[in-house]
Amino acid sequence: MEHAALDLSLDAAALTARLVDFPSESGNEGPLADAIEQALRGLGHLTVHRHGNNIVARTELGRAERVVLAGHIDTVPIAGNVPSRLDDKGILWGCGTTDMKSGVAVQLCIAATVPEPNRDLTFVFYDNEEVAADLNGLGKVAEAHPEWLRADFAVLLEGSVGEVEGGCQGTLRVLLRTKGERAHSARSWMGSNAIHAVGPILARLAAYEPRRPVIDGLEYHEGLNAVRIEGGVANNVIPDECTVTVNFRYAPDRTPQQALEHVREVFDGCGVTELVVDDHSGGALPGLSHPAARAFMEAVGGSARPKFGWTDVARFSALGVPAVNYGPGDPVYAHKRDEHVVVERIHHCERRLRAWLTT
Amino acid sequence: MEHAALDLSLDAAALTARLVDFPSESGNEGPLADAIEQALRGLGHLTVHRHGNNIVARTELGRAERVVLAGHIDTVPIAGNVPSRLDDKGILWGCGTTDMKSGVAVQLCIAATVPEPNRDLTFVFYDNEEVAADLNGLGKVAEAHPEWLRADFAVLLEGSVGEVEGGCQGTLRVLLRTKGERAHSARSWMGSNAIHAVGPILARLAAYEPRRPVIDGLEYHEGLNAVRIEGGVANNVIPDECTVTVNFRYAPDRTPQQALEHVREVFDGCGVTELVVDDHSGGALPGLSHPAARAFMEAVGGSARPKFGWTDVARFSALGVPAVNYGPGDPVYAHKRDEHVVVERIHHCERRLRAWLTT
Repeated sequence: MEHAALDLSLDAAALTARLVDFPSESGNEGPLADAIEQALRGLGHLTVHRHGNNIVARTELGRAERVVLAGHIDTVPIAGNVPSRLDDKGILWGCGTTDMKSGVAVQLCIAATVPEPNRDLTFVFYDNEEVAADLNGLGKVAEAHPEWLRADFAVLLEGSVGEVEGGCQGTLRVLLRTKGERAHSARSWMGSNAIHAVGPILARLAAYEPRRPVIDGLEYHEGLNAVRIEGGVANNVIPDECTVTVNFRYAPDRTPQQALEHVREVFDGCGVTELVVDDHSGGALPGLSHPAARAFMEAVGGSARPKFGWTDVARFSALGVPAVNYGPGDPVYAHKRDEHVVVERIHHCERRLRAWLTT
Repeated sequence: MEHAALDLSLDAAALTARLVDFPSESGNEGPLADAIEQALRGLGHLTVHRHGNNIVARTELGRAERVVLAGHIDTVPIAGNVPSRLDDKGILWGCGTTDMKSGVAVQLCIAATVPEPNRDLTFVFYDNEEVAADLNGLGKVAEAHPEWLRADFAVLLEGSVGEVEGGCQGTLRVLLRTKGERAHSARSWMGSNAIHAVGPILARLAAYEPRRPVIDGLEYHEGLNAVRIEGGVANNVIPDECTVTVNFRYAPDRTPQQALEHVREVFDGCGVTELVVDDHSGGALPGLSHPAARAFMEAVGGSARPKFGWTDVARFSALGVPAVNYGPGDPVYAHKRDEHVVVERIHHCERRLRAWLTT
């Protein structure tokens, strides 16, 4: 498919529509990455780098602070909702309107129209966010060129309905196993029942009181839950093994190591014979006490709220860069056939970021 | 395959070998049933009935008591262990030696050589014991011709190493379900965890003290156990359903109705939202206090022991006929490639039954 070059003189809403009409499902971001690279290279105040289909463009003004504006350029598969359609109520419909081409459009407008920001800027456009974690373009850049991402603060323009979502919680998944001894259920006293042995684990889970710590003014909410349980051999056999899969969602004031230690402590003395870490992604501190972040909060206004789910802000956090989500989209409509974005929110988001970076 | 007619003048051990060499895997009992029918019809003192591949032969002497000698004529699939082989230590090897052609041989010898027993006799030879319960020949005869099975006492010649196994325990399987409400595990407080709700059920199971009642001098041993547990939707979802499969093995002094009531009581107040009966087979009282049974115990000597697993004696019990297992085989070797029987035990079993029926 032939696409005209991206015209960065359009306003953010019109540019959003152009981006939606430029399909870029995960794995097929190449043409859009080319267009973005070409448009950015036309701007004299930016140094442009490329790694795969990931584009990083930076100002090099020697400012005291550097901030990142980041967004992914891929979408989930199109579901009959391209090209975009603007209705008479000021709502733009189409695949990627909310997740997250409206955010990418804001990035591009700021890149084009703020040549002398008060903080050095790093624009990151990355691929494969909607698929497996190990394909994620932001992760690839962080691995190959961590110096491109060095900064004091980062804003991901993921849809957050125009409010700031600070940091994110960590997520740890462990398998807790109990062991028993098989026997025919007609002679159960010859064996030892591994399912019965799970009782104390479930009792601990039911009695667990999750913390709700306040960090940088945001109240997080932890949770410790069994998400799966499996045990049994046959209907007439005393089972010799049972496995409970537990998911711990933890506030970002715990390190991954501390989170795992906490889980071990919770189940201490419960008869767990094996604890296996099945998956682990650390949280991200909101970092709202940093000067760049404070100025950001003042500029965008409103109050921040915590992000309970895990997001790419945690990748910045792992690089030592506090990060928040702030974008015009509404995540409720992400990945849906009726995906849409309120045009006025795109403009609002762009104005707020511009104010932060120019005053 | 052509087989000579069964020669009932052979002794029980030689007849066992002949029967083993006459394959009769479940579903292919026809030729052996024909041979047994033909041999029994040659005995003038028996009235012979046939239903499918099930043969029932009875004396009609007007005795005060009637007893049944029963055995199944099918075997599990042959595993390279036919024809039979007698070793120099007096052990007969082969498929069905222990389960249960040695018992069937004893039945046939008694049928041929005790024309005037002190109790009227009913010999039952049935098919499809080794497969699904609804195919079981004893069950088919009980359904179609219950009058053929009427008696005061029954002996199943299933392998019991020459000792009496009295009655059998009942078995009840129930599914216990808990309900919750789904939510994303990052916002677990929005849902309700059905796996956590299983904790009290497992605690009851772990604390359960099974009864060991003595019935007709036999000590039974009950058991209440989880045999399976299953719950979970996805690794990031609070589960809305969990199911525990519980197996209750109960002594034959409880009726099926009482057993179910007991299970309902045990789990009362545990948060079970649904209790489904998945399978239920009542137990069988040993009935050792009946005069025919007492005389049997005196004749065979030794002490009786309870049968914990469910067996076909429960089918007789359901017809109001107390029953026991008493046979020369050793169930430890049933269904195995190295299946075998001790020849002397076949003779011993036959002598004991003859003594009971003639003195």
